[in-house]
Amino acid sequence: MSGSLVVVGTGPGKAELMTPATQVALAHATDLVGYGPYLDRVPPRDGQRRHASDNRVELERARLALSLAAAGRRVVVVSGGDPGVFAMAAAVFEAVESGEAQWRSLDIRVEPGVTAMLAAAAEVGAPLGGDFCAISLSDNLKSWTTVERRLKAAAEADFVIALYNPASKARPTQLGRAFEILRTIKAAETPVLLVRAAGTSEAKVIATTLGAADPSRADMRTLVIVGASTTRQVGRWVYTPRSERVSRS
Amino acid sequence: MSGSLVVVGTGPGKAELMTPATQVALAHATDLVGYGPYLDRVPPRDGQRRHASDNRVELERARLALSLAAAGRRVVVVSGGDPGVFAMAAAVFEAVESGEAQWRSLDIRVEPGVTAMLAAAAEVGAPLGGDFCAISLSDNLKSWTTVERRLKAAAEADFVIALYNPASKARPTQLGRAFEILRTIKAAETPVLLVRAAGTSEAKVIATTLGAADPSRADMRTLVIVGASTTRQVGRWVYTPRSERVSRS
Repeated sequence: MSGSLVVVGTGPGKAELMTPATQVALAHATDLVGYGPYLDRVPPRDGQRRHASDNRVELERARLALSLAAAGRRVVVVSGGDPGVFAMAAAVFEAVESGEAQWRSLDIRVEPGVTAMLAAAAEVGAPLGGDFCAISLSDNLKSWTTVERRLKAAAEADFVIALYNPASKARPTQLGRAFEILRTIKAAETPVLLVRAAGTSEAKVIATTLGAADPSRADMRTLVIVGASTTRQVGRWVYTPRSERVSRS
Repeated sequence: MSGSLVVVGTGPGKAELMTPATQVALAHATDLVGYGPYLDRVPPRDGQRRHASDNRVELERARLALSLAAAGRRVVVVSGGDPGVFAMAAAVFEAVESGEAQWRSLDIRVEPGVTAMLAAAAEVGAPLGGDFCAISLSDNLKSWTTVERRLKAAAEADFVIALYNPASKARPTQLGRAFEILRTIKAAETPVLLVRAAGTSEAKVIATTLGAADPSRADMRTLVIVGASTTRQVGRWVYTPRSERVSRS
């Protein structure tokens, strides 16, 4: 069995943010498996097969990729961002665990990439400059109780908080509920950043505060960053100092 | 004033993990400012000046970079990993805030990169597959009380925890103390990964458990990942399922 499976992330969108290692993996693949819009970021190559699928069918997609690799194909599973952060890598290993015994001896590799929160942070300065958490607001795969518990813990311990999947047509209310929870713990003047399409030519930043943040301004392509108590504005930038004892001298 | 300042990250080490955008910024710079070992990752170019400095003098380095940019140079500040995660971007904005008024109108940009925890996760599978936190164990710039409070909050809310700066010659005890705190909350069989030199050709993984983890195996080049309650091993990989309700069928 000479097949292989590499799980890659295209980065946030711009080709200039896709790593050379990922570009090489894509160039050597016989088969690309992924959500349609991510596959569209990959330049076409003669003889390469594309297996585009819908969003929300990650496990099926992972099983297809593993079957192809087991049949001797060089398969690349294409995620956005980093494949290990709220993306396809976990789904691939779930499929391995619940799948055919021979899949465990496959040549599987993960290539890291630039995840959305890093691109979003770079658009505005350095808001992730201190300790931070990443929380997905999607409750498709976990309970809202768990999301709430994590939001509270992160706020109480004064982490910067990056919110992935803040909203979608099917889940329009989560971000508003998250802001409400955070407002019971964090100050109203805490900086909040809604960064849409970070790391693409269409990037758009709304810099606001927790007290004023409007959840309806976020959609599927938005990454939300809620600052720590030390997060601050300087000129047109927002950043979190490395120190909790910041000197202004 | 036609100078500019770009803050970049080289990624974890291998050239194949440095983004093309960062390579372009480096190629166009007249001046590179950074910690010596990170500058060494950048191929030399004729006419480009290098300002190498020691670790632990981030603010001085940031001020030098800003002065050069204000004098009309095209400056790139070189971090490892992603510049916004426990690296130089925050120091640059601290220097802007406390520095000369004209620095606020400079052309400053941050280019995102692949941070160490993403490279470490990719080496072992997908341990960051659920909600996660990143905590620096260095207490040079924050109190150990803060570190402890964040470790407890992260453990109680069942986040995966990535520990940056787990140990150095000057700080040999922090990781052991962190493990002790986590052991009071997380189960002894929780997967723990000590990943040294992730994303380089010398990468080395120790996969162990919280009960058995030996803090003396970590050094400055190690990134430590402590799993959530759902983090598990499958074959030679470790991953965190996307769901907290994992079906094994």
